[in-house]
Amino acid sequence: MEPAAARALLPVAVQEARAGLAEGGIPIGAALYAADGRLLGRGRNRRVQDDDPSMHAETAAFRAAGRQRTYNGTTMVTTLSPCWYCSGLIRQFGMSRVVIGEATTFVGGREWLAGCGVEIVVLDDAECRALMREFVAANPELWGEDIGEG
Amino acid sequence: MEPAAARALLPVAVQEARAGLAEGGIPIGAALYAADGRLLGRGRNRRVQDDDPSMHAETAAFRAAGRQRTYNGTTMVTTLSPCWYCSGLIRQFGMSRVVIGEATTFVGGREWLAGCGVEIVVLDDAECRALMREFVAANPELWGEDIGEG
Repeated sequence: MEPAAARALLPVAVQEARAGLAEGGIPIGAALYAADGRLLGRGRNRRVQDDDPSMHAETAAFRAAGRQRTYNGTTMVTTLSPCWYCSGLIRQFGMSRVVIGEATTFVGGREWLAGCGVEIVVLDDAECRALMREFVAANPELWGEDIGEG
Repeated sequence: MEPAAARALLPVAVQEARAGLAEGGIPIGAALYAADGRLLGRGRNRRVQDDDPSMHAETAAFRAAGRQRTYNGTTMVTTLSPCWYCSGLIRQFGMSRVVIGEATTFVGGREWLAGCGVEIVVLDDAECRALMREFVAANPELWGEDIGEG
């Protein structure tokens, strides 16, 4: 996927991240798109809002998409490089592509996914970087909890 | 962990799997135990019951355990070898040990987890094997959907 096309998919995930921040949550958002460009589901980290550690942005978008027979051709868009939990989700369900807002503040499993044949596009988006950098600086314990480094 | 001690942790996960089967769901159950042996959370696959693809047995048990500051020393008990999604969960949150009822009907990420330093105990339990074997034979499409091979 061309960077411009990938960038065009980012706004919904950023909206989700900003909505999470406004709720007092961890500002990570995601959106899952079908091969034909339809939005299948969108979501955001819900650890704080729902006291639910299982809802990372990517798993929330996956959940919101409901049951699907195949994920072939789908694109998971996320504001932050996916952690191992979300990378495992992407691998298990055979998503084709991950568009990542930024991979500076967190590494996760993106190289592992690339090695598994998943197309990875890193946008290095300044807004995504600023969202996470400011949040992590102000809430280091909460961020540590969210990635199991509490 | 000694096999006898691991086996003693299996019944709650099997109860969850059987409850799922009785509900018309995919019969996989899990339970998360603290380092001191306390049961933190238990759950079962909820794809059918809740139309929720994100709730595998392990993620359901993780969710039920609520927010935890650390997973150091925890044991995830599951009736079936964890898929990549659930293996990623176990790695990201630094769980110490996985007790697996059976790893015959599905492989998943257990060797990868072992390579990451997670202790893996496979019980090769006949009841767990029979549960999955019968379910997969009767519901091959539903099982394929649950592991992204629809």
